[in-house]
Amino acid sequence: MPDLKRREVIGAGLAGAVGIATGRLGGGDAEAARRKRRRHRRKVKRYDAIVVGAGLAGLTAARQIRRAGHSVLILEARKRVGGRNFDHHLGGGEVAELGGQWAGPGQDRVLGLARELGVGTFETYAQGKSVYYRAGQRKTYSGDIPPASPASLVELEATILAINDLASDVPLHEPWNAPDARTLDQQTVAAWIDARNHTAEARELAALAIRGVYGEEASQVSLLDMLAAVQGVGGDFNTLIGDAQSIRFAGGPQQFSIKLARKLRRQLKKNAPVLAVEHGKRIVVHTRRHSFRARRLILTPPKPVIGALRFSPQLPPAFDQVLQRQPMGCTIKVNAIYDRPFWRDQGLSGTVVSDTGPIEIVYDNSPPDGRPGVLVGFMEANEGRSLMSAPLATRRAAALDCFARYFGGAARHPSGYVDMVWARERYTRGAYGTFNPPGVLTSLGAATAGSAGRIHFAGDGTSPEWPGYMDGAIRSGERAASEVIAAL
Amino acid sequence: MPDLKRREVIGAGLAGAVGIATGRLGGGDAEAARRKRRRHRRKVKRYDAIVVGAGLAGLTAARQIRRAGHSVLILEARKRVGGRNFDHHLGGGEVAELGGQWAGPGQDRVLGLARELGVGTFETYAQGKSVYYRAGQRKTYSGDIPPASPASLVELEATILAINDLASDVPLHEPWNAPDARTLDQQTVAAWIDARNHTAEARELAALAIRGVYGEEASQVSLLDMLAAVQGVGGDFNTLIGDAQSIRFAGGPQQFSIKLARKLRRQLKKNAPVLAVEHGKRIVVHTRRHSFRARRLILTPPKPVIGALRFSPQLPPAFDQVLQRQPMGCTIKVNAIYDRPFWRDQGLSGTVVSDTGPIEIVYDNSPPDGRPGVLVGFMEANEGRSLMSAPLATRRAAALDCFARYFGGAARHPSGYVDMVWARERYTRGAYGTFNPPGVLTSLGAATAGSAGRIHFAGDGTSPEWPGYMDGAIRSGERAASEVIAAL
Repeated sequence: MPDLKRREVIGAGLAGAVGIATGRLGGGDAEAARRKRRRHRRKVKRYDAIVVGAGLAGLTAARQIRRAGHSVLILEARKRVGGRNFDHHLGGGEVAELGGQWAGPGQDRVLGLARELGVGTFETYAQGKSVYYRAGQRKTYSGDIPPASPASLVELEATILAINDLASDVPLHEPWNAPDARTLDQQTVAAWIDARNHTAEARELAALAIRGVYGEEASQVSLLDMLAAVQGVGGDFNTLIGDAQSIRFAGGPQQFSIKLARKLRRQLKKNAPVLAVEHGKRIVVHTRRHSFRARRLILTPPKPVIGALRFSPQLPPAFDQVLQRQPMGCTIKVNAIYDRPFWRDQGLSGTVVSDTGPIEIVYDNSPPDGRPGVLVGFMEANEGRSLMSAPLATRRAAALDCFARYFGGAARHPSGYVDMVWARERYTRGAYGTFNPPGVLTSLGAATAGSAGRIHFAGDGTSPEWPGYMDGAIRSGERAASEVIAAL
Repeated sequence: MPDLKRREVIGAGLAGAVGIATGRLGGGDAEAARRKRRRHRRKVKRYDAIVVGAGLAGLTAARQIRRAGHSVLILEARKRVGGRNFDHHLGGGEVAELGGQWAGPGQDRVLGLARELGVGTFETYAQGKSVYYRAGQRKTYSGDIPPASPASLVELEATILAINDLASDVPLHEPWNAPDARTLDQQTVAAWIDARNHTAEARELAALAIRGVYGEEASQVSLLDMLAAVQGVGGDFNTLIGDAQSIRFAGGPQQFSIKLARKLRRQLKKNAPVLAVEHGKRIVVHTRRHSFRARRLILTPPKPVIGALRFSPQLPPAFDQVLQRQPMGCTIKVNAIYDRPFWRDQGLSGTVVSDTGPIEIVYDNSPPDGRPGVLVGFMEANEGRSLMSAPLATRRAAALDCFARYFGGAARHPSGYVDMVWARERYTRGAYGTFNPPGVLTSLGAATAGSAGRIHFAGDGTSPEWPGYMDGAIRSGERAASEVIAAL
């Protein structure tokens, strides 16, 4: 444990932060800056590692680094922990999740963490019939396959088989080295789907499935990125759109971060947005009023959030270019709370698949005992964009219109309504996660797979396994911590 | 002229800038922040409009706003003006351009500005034979069409006709309303080209042409974006890859900005990078040590540069999403300087089209009198990435290898070598310009075509006419100035 909280004085503080960030101190300015810096001179704490972001990736990494005997500081921009895990409390220890919520078979890390932290699991409610809404017609159906036209179902089945077949040749940790990477990466998922599906219904259902994975239109996503994601969940596209959403956590998954943060209380600073990062032979991280020094840095926020930090010197150009090229999807997550899950009385599971927005996907999101009843809906991609600037009342009215369309008039009268416009969150900038537009993986994937000097990257979007999932976030934190520990 | 330089005191300065940027002052923090703000309290100058960026767009806009009788301040991050116009001086008033340099017929604005400012024009040297290098074979040819295989030339000709035909249906000012916009926008240029060209030579020449337009791989660019660009230059793809590069400016085009800035000396602050922008009922722009207030703001830098500013409140989410989705291409521009243009003695024009990098495109870039002789070469997209982190000596050796391959051993011994790795420029972050990846225009184009409240956008990438050209930059400045003047 060298350097453990050893204090020393370096010229830092905010003036220093911005001075280095602009990298332009010359002539008379230099003297003025020196004076200013002297005024701001302060004790700068020193750590082995600093972790930015107290979500699952950051907290996992920090815990592992600390367990290895190194000093660590976690800087969290918000007043809360959890990142894209954010639960709305319903009372009685029950929650409606406004962020990530589901797990499924094979997600060993998040299921293991739940066991370790004493968080129970339960199955997503799926008894009864589901609703399929298309072209103004509402139908109900049993099982997993909506009552689409036989022709479209045949096409979709073939599409999924083709996806799984293509994915099987994509190397999990280096998709840019797939046999036909260049061709796969120069296509959008939408173009590829449309070329293989000729019924409008199959095309639309496939596009809806992709929106469910990314929170973004299939027209923006590289086919190679999607194939890599399929590999990342075990090789079957059905996992991405089905099984991975089967398990929920009693009391909500934000508990994971809250419980982990409790054990790292002395290592965690909340309400401490990072503004600037100096890197090179050492790391200096600047918040509004403090500066912290470390030997290694782990950045866990989504790429567009990292892109708003000022780095001095600039990041190596390949990393700078990835920051320009990995956007966040755009999803508004909606929960309507009812005294009871009245749809169950009608023999309905709460699941909806619809061609009519803004909410085209719905699930029963009630707590395990069904009190209260909760419907969760997603306004994804362009549907989310249509309402992301609207006031709460407008979003609520649009959401309840959808729920009423699927479950009848009772849905118009919830006891509560909450939603989350992730695109308006400065420290997230969208949902579900980042993705690679066409050509990015093959142009920049290999060059940015590792660390940028002493700066390491974590977060679900950096995990080959279960990208976009809590499980991926945890894995990324473990990987980044291992990199840092090996280097310390 | 209301508000002309009226002074007033508002709590601002850097502490204020960052306070507003983080938007998190509460409890004990608030008192500390107030103390700090008092310490930093200063006179804040007030303008009708602030323009960020002293390139052609910003200077054009500022001039027009001033001519309309309004007060204006231009904030430029660098010590120099001109943005992506950056000329290397050869002595005797001659330059080798390291940034934008060419114009062509139809570019009325930049040609008009040259006349107005007394800058002469001359034709790019193109006498003699050009070099076509492919698969290790060097050939020479006359005219504009390289000696590719007849089959590939037939395919390319058909491809260009198809591009022009598709482009003719794309509305210049709203490409997202093209009849088949969704389909056109979900394809990359590369996938579309490969589907229509079956000879490797045609595919590679087409991809090279696209790299010449964007400085980026065709695999990253939306077909709809390219069709809009074709409309923006008058409807013919050949203009984009040919005529638009026919005219040069004696003494170099950075003169435009230098001369414009001279007339706006009192309105221009150089070496003043903007860190944060407050917007709402008023605009407050914060640099490292000063704050400026205005009624309207024009932002001219490329989108990824704007994306690194801190806005308070955040930009409306559609704009925030575009900032995540319009990256800069990646080009290294190289000039090798020789005592004389020795290639002319061999009857060569200096023009090269090659399949072998890192420099695949070369032109004679000598001053009008051919003294000295200059070859300009471009390392574009992935070729640029392969050397963007390399030291100057490595880039120089790689470039001279290329020039020697095309023009013989004499090319190995220049009297000077200069290049510009635009991806390493903090205030540009790439070249040639921004582009739309697939799906972006149709998802966000309409929502971000105007201003974001009091914030207006300019820069070549915002101009439907001649995007990526000096002419487009000037037009964008005129348009933004008109918007601001109408609103003042």
